[in-house]
Amino acid sequence: MTQSQSHRIADIQITPVAFADPPLLNSVGVHEPYALRAIVVLHTESGHYGLGETYGDSAHLARLERAAGFLRGTDVFKLNQIAELVEDSLRGDQGQGGHGTGGMVTTTSLADRVLSAFNVAALDAQGKILGLPVSTLLGGAVRERVDFSGYLFYKWDRHPGHEPDAWGEALDPEGIVRQARTMVERYGFKALKLKGGVFPPEQEAAAIEALHQVFPGTPLRLDPNGVWNVATGIEVGRRLDGVLEYLEDPCLSAEDNAAVRRAIPMPLATNMCVVSFNDLPEAIERKAIDIVLSDHHFWGGLSRSALLAGIARTFGLKLSMHSNSHLGISFAAMVQLAAATENIDYACDTHWPWKRPDEDVILPGALELAGGAVAVPEAPGLGIELDPEGLARLHQQYLDCGLRERDDTGYMRRIDPSFELASPRW
Amino acid sequence: MTQSQSHRIADIQITPVAFADPPLLNSVGVHEPYALRAIVVLHTESGHYGLGETYGDSAHLARLERAAGFLRGTDVFKLNQIAELVEDSLRGDQGQGGHGTGGMVTTTSLADRVLSAFNVAALDAQGKILGLPVSTLLGGAVRERVDFSGYLFYKWDRHPGHEPDAWGEALDPEGIVRQARTMVERYGFKALKLKGGVFPPEQEAAAIEALHQVFPGTPLRLDPNGVWNVATGIEVGRRLDGVLEYLEDPCLSAEDNAAVRRAIPMPLATNMCVVSFNDLPEAIERKAIDIVLSDHHFWGGLSRSALLAGIARTFGLKLSMHSNSHLGISFAAMVQLAAATENIDYACDTHWPWKRPDEDVILPGALELAGGAVAVPEAPGLGIELDPEGLARLHQQYLDCGLRERDDTGYMRRIDPSFELASPRW
Ligand SMILES: [Mg+2]
Ligand SMILES: [Mg+2]
Repeated sequence: MTQSQSHRIADIQITPVAFADPPLLNSVGVHEPYALRAIVVLHTESGHYGLGETYGDSAHLARLERAAGFLRGTDVFKLNQIAELVEDSLRGDQGQGGHGTGGMVTTTSLADRVLSAFNVAALDAQGKILGLPVSTLLGGAVRERVDFSGYLFYKWDRHPGHEPDAWGEALDPEGIVRQARTMVERYGFKALKLKGGVFPPEQEAAAIEALHQVFPGTPLRLDPNGVWNVATGIEVGRRLDGVLEYLEDPCLSAEDNAAVRRAIPMPLATNMCVVSFNDLPEAIERKAIDIVLSDHHFWGGLSRSALLAGIARTFGLKLSMHSNSHLGISFAAMVQLAAATENIDYACDTHWPWKRPDEDVILPGALELAGGAVAVPEAPGLGIELDPEGLARLHQQYLDCGLRERDDTGYMRRIDPSFELASPRW
Repeated sequence: MTQSQSHRIADIQITPVAFADPPLLNSVGVHEPYALRAIVVLHTESGHYGLGETYGDSAHLARLERAAGFLRGTDVFKLNQIAELVEDSLRGDQGQGGHGTGGMVTTTSLADRVLSAFNVAALDAQGKILGLPVSTLLGGAVRERVDFSGYLFYKWDRHPGHEPDAWGEALDPEGIVRQARTMVERYGFKALKLKGGVFPPEQEAAAIEALHQVFPGTPLRLDPNGVWNVATGIEVGRRLDGVLEYLEDPCLSAEDNAAVRRAIPMPLATNMCVVSFNDLPEAIERKAIDIVLSDHHFWGGLSRSALLAGIARTFGLKLSMHSNSHLGISFAAMVQLAAATENIDYACDTHWPWKRPDEDVILPGALELAGGAVAVPEAPGLGIELDPEGLARLHQQYLDCGLRERDDTGYMRRIDPSFELASPRW
């Protein structure tokens, strides 16, 4: 770092990519054969670069491009200014689309969602310029390893018309237990989460009980993504007393979740009803939740996620981390953030095992998931380096696959025309 | 910055200093002839240094020394670890004394009070190492100048037994107006605050009205430091409708202030009933206040003050800054923090004009108060440099003056044995 150099943003490249995704089932449908992401590569006039990763839906891509235009020329160290410029770029935007979550979480802050990848890329560039890991820029690592949970999904054995994948089918408790064994064997997870909301609650509760039998003492979570009514949430919560570490988003609204929370023995977590700074005052006033599952992709990046952590600590909320299908840049950002956050109270979620190891936009080796944890990289910035060939390959895959939105529901309906969204379903 | 160098803390010197202070009156007594501060000079193994400034009371000095012992060997970039080590150093501490506020604010967080100067010194060292101003380390300056208010005090014309000072007497509305004219003439303040709680509320309200006559349109604040009852707070608040920008701490408790707040037309500010992160949940739940007057000396330094700002923004509280008698290091820290804080909603308080220009521990020239504002230094760190001779001189003055605690009440009683604390007094 020298003051005489200009660290202004010379250029920002935004590249949509697609990577293979298994047919993971959820309350709104099923993952399509490819997950979309946008890769942000920011270049400074001083010749450094920084990486960010975010949703790849077309509405989001258009906003990223527009924001990038506003950001060129800005000092990469001026994070507050970067946030302001992103807001400026969204003036008049009606906020339609670009949520990146298949319609499941649609009330996140537009500005924070667009800011996120630029904040990450700016911090990565800062770290590379200064020779400091991003965790240090966020106040310093308080742990050397970040714990993750094994994220279990009901799934088909293949995408219709494709070859079976290596994970096989999981459509009942036995399938989930089999999947969990593989997850734990490969990655050493010490906590397990089941994405529910797919089958009737009794069956999903039975899957959790089966996991509890096979992995006694392992913290377990169940997340039906808000498709239960209050009575179902209470019934399942009580049934799983002593089994579930926490219940995640049984219902969709903060009000309904608060009603479930008051009646169940375990804590209640959310990444659906408290998803922006605007949601916090009311949720705290109503005592609607116990645990916020933060997600830097919709909480404005790493700087604002650190603020969320401070708010959680101040107001007695517990904290952990939500995940979407992601590549290595997002994984590195999650690890750096969790490393510098004192009050990460539970093992974080990640979709990492569901990604093919040979598909990524970063050079391999920086992030290894073993013993249920990732060692925090100490290299500058996010601790990762761009793989231009990987980026080009996944961009070509994006061009070839034809997908332009995340549409779990539409995909499911093409396979099962009788599929209907329902909220609550049970 | 190079990664190969060690930026561990090699040494921390804590030096108590005393600087001349005029006989400023307040609700608990009067400022003694010298104000005490502790100057923290932190040295890294790489040969850099960082500055911090905090209270100079003996109990606080002892805690600073103890914490410094815990901090030696720690990387100056590990702010989270520095905070944890300061907490460790306070295990078993019963928290008596060392508040630095003459008994007026006694419920601040012990850990945050001790942490503050080390956090500031670490950030100053980081900035000097990296060639970046502290405002950049806090997310980047959002303004080039920080506005301050002219801080008016009732005062005697001299300390008993001393020569008269240049400010003269101010014991009635005319004296306050005269003082205000001098303040505004010299420093160009565009907002004025009167420290009240000294005379009956009618007289202090009359002083505010006199200021309003002479400086129409200038935002005015009145701060009786919590010595009024609810009825008085409401009466004065209503009387000064359209005249006061905000009323500050009319009463001592959050409950009483909330009652005043509901009945008066202007916002209510506090630096007495919301003084730590622990106070925030209840104050927000009760809607007790409108404006938090932050103070990095008791909110844990600059990093945690940035968190406070984020909390204020999230929960719809306004933000400004409280001041105690201080030297240039604290002034620089306040300026860097305010520069990087988007939601500094009002001109900040400062005692700067009450300090003799020839007494400080920093080299002159870095901080100039003109047009009611200070230009944010762009030099690395806090933008100031230690003046070892000034430090030695003010330390000698500390040794010579014999004061070891801030004791506004005891001093007043030595002059007027009939003086009694009263809360509420009116
Ligand atoms: Mg969830
Ligand atoms: Mg005050």
